[in-house]
Amino acid sequence: MESALAYFTKNKDHSIEELKEYLKIPSISTLREHKPDIERVVKFLLTHLKNIGLENGRAFPTGGNPIVYADWLHAKGKPTILIYGHYDVQPADPLKEWKSKPFAPTVRNRNIYARGATDNKGQHWAHLQAIEAYLKGTGQLPVNVKIFIEGEEEVGGPSVAPFVKKNQKLLRAELAILSDGTKFRKGQPTIYIGMRGLLYMEIRVRTAHIDAHSGLFGGRIDNAANVLAHILSHLKDRKGKVLIPGFYAPVKKLSQEEKEAYEKLPTGGGELRRILGIKQIFTEEDYPEQISGAARPTLDVNGLLSGFTGEGSKTIIPYEALAKVSMRLVPDQDPDEIEKLFIKYVKGLTPTTADLSIIRHAGSAPYVMKKDWGLSEMIKAQKEVWGKKPLLLRVGGVIGAVADFHRYLGIDTIMADIGDPDDNLHAPNEKLSLENIAKGTEMSIRFLNLIGDK
Amino acid sequence: MESALAYFTKNKDHSIEELKEYLKIPSISTLREHKPDIERVVKFLLTHLKNIGLENGRAFPTGGNPIVYADWLHAKGKPTILIYGHYDVQPADPLKEWKSKPFAPTVRNRNIYARGATDNKGQHWAHLQAIEAYLKGTGQLPVNVKIFIEGEEEVGGPSVAPFVKKNQKLLRAELAILSDGTKFRKGQPTIYIGMRGLLYMEIRVRTAHIDAHSGLFGGRIDNAANVLAHILSHLKDRKGKVLIPGFYAPVKKLSQEEKEAYEKLPTGGGELRRILGIKQIFTEEDYPEQISGAARPTLDVNGLLSGFTGEGSKTIIPYEALAKVSMRLVPDQDPDEIEKLFIKYVKGLTPTTADLSIIRHAGSAPYVMKKDWGLSEMIKAQKEVWGKKPLLLRVGGVIGAVADFHRYLGIDTIMADIGDPDDNLHAPNEKLSLENIAKGTEMSIRFLNLIGDK
Repeated sequence: MESALAYFTKNKDHSIEELKEYLKIPSISTLREHKPDIERVVKFLLTHLKNIGLENGRAFPTGGNPIVYADWLHAKGKPTILIYGHYDVQPADPLKEWKSKPFAPTVRNRNIYARGATDNKGQHWAHLQAIEAYLKGTGQLPVNVKIFIEGEEEVGGPSVAPFVKKNQKLLRAELAILSDGTKFRKGQPTIYIGMRGLLYMEIRVRTAHIDAHSGLFGGRIDNAANVLAHILSHLKDRKGKVLIPGFYAPVKKLSQEEKEAYEKLPTGGGELRRILGIKQIFTEEDYPEQISGAARPTLDVNGLLSGFTGEGSKTIIPYEALAKVSMRLVPDQDPDEIEKLFIKYVKGLTPTTADLSIIRHAGSAPYVMKKDWGLSEMIKAQKEVWGKKPLLLRVGGVIGAVADFHRYLGIDTIMADIGDPDDNLHAPNEKLSLENIAKGTEMSIRFLNLIGDK
Repeated sequence: MESALAYFTKNKDHSIEELKEYLKIPSISTLREHKPDIERVVKFLLTHLKNIGLENGRAFPTGGNPIVYADWLHAKGKPTILIYGHYDVQPADPLKEWKSKPFAPTVRNRNIYARGATDNKGQHWAHLQAIEAYLKGTGQLPVNVKIFIEGEEEVGGPSVAPFVKKNQKLLRAELAILSDGTKFRKGQPTIYIGMRGLLYMEIRVRTAHIDAHSGLFGGRIDNAANVLAHILSHLKDRKGKVLIPGFYAPVKKLSQEEKEAYEKLPTGGGELRRILGIKQIFTEEDYPEQISGAARPTLDVNGLLSGFTGEGSKTIIPYEALAKVSMRLVPDQDPDEIEKLFIKYVKGLTPTTADLSIIRHAGSAPYVMKKDWGLSEMIKAQKEVWGKKPLLLRVGGVIGAVADFHRYLGIDTIMADIGDPDDNLHAPNEKLSLENIAKGTEMSIRFLNLIGDK
């Protein structure tokens, strides 16, 4: 392990230059025009995995974007760790708010700024650096590893589940690990042992087939934007409660122990004010921020579009209005069941003056770790690197693959995020600090070593 | 008059070619990048007004777009008619829904298709053709005329009121006339003797200074799009009632006579289904369509924008959301007073988690004709042209200048619209039929003659 750590220290500047090449590729999965960039990023990854000493590198085609796989399986009698990452990134808009271009990675104040810096290229890069350090610095790894890097995480894509289901033997492992999110707060190591699921829907309301002059027709016809506002305002009340009948019915109560652990956590209020510029915390009524933000389901409007939105005024009654609406789910809410409840409720809210269409963009099941194999090793590795005992929490976000690994491979996933809460995930000026990349790499080196000694 | 009619009949094809040149200029007043087109259209008009024999042509600069004026004042002892029009047009979006390009005027099925065809270039063109027919066909007009063509009608611009106030002597007349809207139904001549006022507001809600990841922060922070939906859904209920306290207080009750006249009108349900593609009529509760659509105030959301609205999904909590909201006002609702009520109410609906900003884009007072000078002549002229007695109604839309003429010049305006309800005002594929242009011209020729004989 010491040789691996030494190798890493010596080579880390060069490795950051390589990471920059990876970050330059705008591998945005939600926009069709970036398909060629997906091909470029897959090629880049395969070359890099081979260069650092991994074997059997391959891009598996799927219905959507390819899944990149590689392994090193020469640690006889040792456990196998599946390391997850995703090479796709969020769209970069609004572009004008970026201080440096999203796909021109730039180091400022010891942070690397780029779309994908923290979500997720920079974070799985830390694990790849750990592997490189072992294979180049010592010629071997203390455990067997399998690398799984997908390209549809940001679109909740449908390809991972059937691939995992079909390739159970290829992917067999004792445990999966990943780093894809943020520590609870800066400098506070955090292990996430559960996560919320997701259901992402789109509602379109139509009240006519053209926009109509609001003076001539106002008072005679209905308005798609008004109808949409009516529907949306009935999805969640101003106390943070989701109003879809049956929505909370499958939700498992937190154990007294979990509840107390959450309540002991510091609240993030001050930090959120600084990072996001919010005026005050807004949680589900009767739940403290720590529980409402991670262990309770939520509903958010993600986007709205209707009628005239340019400068000035245009006096029209819009014929169509659309909203993107997503829900975060917790055990045991099933996305398919919640989808049915959502559709039924929205239909009931839609007046007879309007046509409604509803699309499902993504869905994934919530998850909580069932066993604790490998957990004490990750706790120890994090403590050695950050000098503090990690918090054990559930994460508010979703990584669809975690649920798939659980369901089809029967393994848990340890989520050991190395980013900070102010990394601007999904927002302009996304970043990851060079310190976190280095510490994350050291965490991975130490963790693999501890598992090898297990 | 017969010579004027003959001149028009002989020259009408050539005049349509000239109208096409006028329609080619994209004089969109709400978009700043079209400023050079405003200059072009003013130059075009001044040349044309001179060519048809009008005098004293001049473009008066204002704080916004120039006001084009010209006159012919040689009918000694005869009344003066002020003819109003506007050279500015609505934006053309959504472009992809136009069958021919909005600024490439095209004749199909005896209709001329272009942005501005009916609103308003084609309609005031009919009056200009009437003047040309007299001056070129007979060398004189039976009355004095003053032409007033402004460039901010589509933005409820602030320049007309101060201009009219300042130039009372220049604009002095017995009556104003205009054609800027649609007949009640195809083939049914209609004179509008009143109109609704307008108040056009924009609401912006901010809950943070960046978009936030909905997984990491959902359940901990508020959402600008959800807050906006909450506000909008409380502005008007699903029975068509505006919920702003005090909104209806100044509204004058219709006289029993007016009420009965409205109730006798045919409803437009079937026609609106065909033209606009609506499923059913939606009126204010307790008011039939004919009254709700013209003599009652309304509120409509004109546009909505927030967060991610592209293809697919992006899991963000939007930090900002905007809505354009306009109200149609009736006597005696004062736009300034209603603005105060609106702002107070919206502030009260805004939670402490959000910052609110409200902009007023436009406002104009409602109006009803006070005297009936010239009305019998317009009724007679329309009956001669369309073979039917016109309906006397109030119009749902607004022409700001009408209220200004009333206030500062002390004169009424007769609104003698020549367009049809299916002309796609403010929508793609705007048109005006060649038949309506011809009949409108004949109406104007006959009306001016009747006034001259008065």
